[in-house]
Amino acid sequence: VTTTLRVALAGCGTVGGALVDLVSHSAREIAWRTGVRIEIVRVLVRDLRRLRGPNVQREIVTDDVDDFLASPADVVVEATGDVPTAGQIASATLSSGRRFVTANKALMRDSGPELAALAHRHRASGATLDFEAAVGGGVPIVRLLRESMAGHVIDSVRGVLSGSANYILWRMEQGESFAESLSCAQERGLTEADPSRDLQGVDAADKIAVLAWLAFGVHPRTIDVRLRGLPDDPRDLTSAARSRNSVARLAAHASHVNGKLDVAVGPEIVDRTHPFGRTTEDQVAITVVSRSAGQICLSGRGAGGAATASALLADIVRAAAPIPVLLPTELSYANFQLQT
Amino acid sequence: VTTTLRVALAGCGTVGGALVDLVSHSAREIAWRTGVRIEIVRVLVRDLRRLRGPNVQREIVTDDVDDFLASPADVVVEATGDVPTAGQIASATLSSGRRFVTANKALMRDSGPELAALAHRHRASGATLDFEAAVGGGVPIVRLLRESMAGHVIDSVRGVLSGSANYILWRMEQGESFAESLSCAQERGLTEADPSRDLQGVDAADKIAVLAWLAFGVHPRTIDVRLRGLPDDPRDLTSAARSRNSVARLAAHASHVNGKLDVAVGPEIVDRTHPFGRTTEDQVAITVVSRSAGQICLSGRGAGGAATASALLADIVRAAAPIPVLLPTELSYANFQLQT
Repeated sequence: VTTTLRVALAGCGTVGGALVDLVSHSAREIAWRTGVRIEIVRVLVRDLRRLRGPNVQREIVTDDVDDFLASPADVVVEATGDVPTAGQIASATLSSGRRFVTANKALMRDSGPELAALAHRHRASGATLDFEAAVGGGVPIVRLLRESMAGHVIDSVRGVLSGSANYILWRMEQGESFAESLSCAQERGLTEADPSRDLQGVDAADKIAVLAWLAFGVHPRTIDVRLRGLPDDPRDLTSAARSRNSVARLAAHASHVNGKLDVAVGPEIVDRTHPFGRTTEDQVAITVVSRSAGQICLSGRGAGGAATASALLADIVRAAAPIPVLLPTELSYANFQLQT
Repeated sequence: VTTTLRVALAGCGTVGGALVDLVSHSAREIAWRTGVRIEIVRVLVRDLRRLRGPNVQREIVTDDVDDFLASPADVVVEATGDVPTAGQIASATLSSGRRFVTANKALMRDSGPELAALAHRHRASGATLDFEAAVGGGVPIVRLLRESMAGHVIDSVRGVLSGSANYILWRMEQGESFAESLSCAQERGLTEADPSRDLQGVDAADKIAVLAWLAFGVHPRTIDVRLRGLPDDPRDLTSAARSRNSVARLAAHASHVNGKLDVAVGPEIVDRTHPFGRTTEDQVAITVVSRSAGQICLSGRGAGGAATASALLADIVRAAAPIPVLLPTELSYANFQLQT
């Protein structure tokens, strides 16, 4: 029942490496749920000498973008984090009528609508653009806004969008210092080598701008996000929160106020029972308010390789199999060996 | 940019009627987000004499199934709630290579895998099967399990799945009697004329069985759901909850325990800070635990025509436009008249 889907992967750091591992470890689940066998045919890296995990064969690795783009892939996945390279790969992929999947929030903020238009122009030859992994880690907020809420008039999108910032604030709640919390987040691959994008809210600003685009149709590059990051040492913030039996979170929102779009990122003190206050570790939480569906709330893991890779995978198989294959009973039983 | 999508709608009660209204009121949002203009070309009803809303033209209404199936529709939407009729419509639609979208949880529990196999067999001619509206109302749990979590090894799915039962329990929390709460739920179109399916948990059992199918690959009809409904008068239950500063909810779960699948529905007393305890009115809440993504939580409106219709709409436009059209900036601005 399975067809093979050839994937070319640009970037093999935290996210790209996690995708390679996920594809390798979950081959059976993927085939069962989607009817697709994924084969990674090419991996683009910056440094050929750096060691990759055991699931990356040496012969498929290249550091040459043209070589990478020439590979016979059905889907090109971008996890470099670099905007110029990502933009070049995106344009070339979509123009050649192929599927492009990205985790790059900065790319989507900068030129998401242009890339969407390019994919639309080349849709007849098979071009698609997907970017679930760009916002929300393992939480499918992009698909919710793009598809599930088509036809909804949206009033607001609010979220704790930086799993990295959340992890640090959450550890400080447990009494750790800022320095300890930060180094622990870095050890776990939850922040970039330079964590300032996460802490200053630049990362969250890119994400809320992309969500505002999906919800309200405004080009994310043109959105002026009112931005306040975490304080240099967030200790005063977390202490103030604790004294009110609340917690501090880096929150973002995009909402319609009197016909104007208001988009902002900043630290907030929130109640522990609020969906934002209930986030622990590297979780994110997002609420969408619309006329017909009221408030929809999503939460889950929002940072780290595994969660982001799972969003990439969802987009990869979606491009391949718009109808997920649900196998007949006997096959499913055989695969899962359930004794009900 | 828009293409027209012809919809034949079976059933024009609470859910079907809400879909007609949603399509009529949100035409602009739908066209903007998806590039699709929806035209309802045929409506199947049981009683031709019953008055429909102002958005249903008399000349498209029929009470003849064959006449209905012969209509020139791209998508057939089923919101009758009746299993035999729904099954007949589903088989005929998929066999003829057309798209079938349903809100019918009982149908999906009874023959979801067979219908999925039928859609798969006829996929080359364009058959697709979608049933987001069958579980969770406006909360996109079906898509989460079918697509976003492809490749995840799922440990458990838990949920407050009956918005109707939740509404009644929530009103009783505010001090109302069972009879008052029930009649209020009925007035708002949140329960069937016969509410026993909701109250006895049969409705939730169908839903958790369908989710267990998506998560674990077991045929939902073969799943033996351990079922306890609400007590005849849930007052003792809600009082017991209140005395523990907690709330009573009708909860369902499907989980792997020692290699066995355990699926159950029953009243539970849950903490107010738990995602289930935080549901108000007709909200539902669902948590999915998997190895790579940890716990993902979704909540939102789970009953009533508008929420369910919005899930139908998401499936309708998805079938039409697997690439949602994200329009260039100037168009979006023009449509929304935002002054940023």
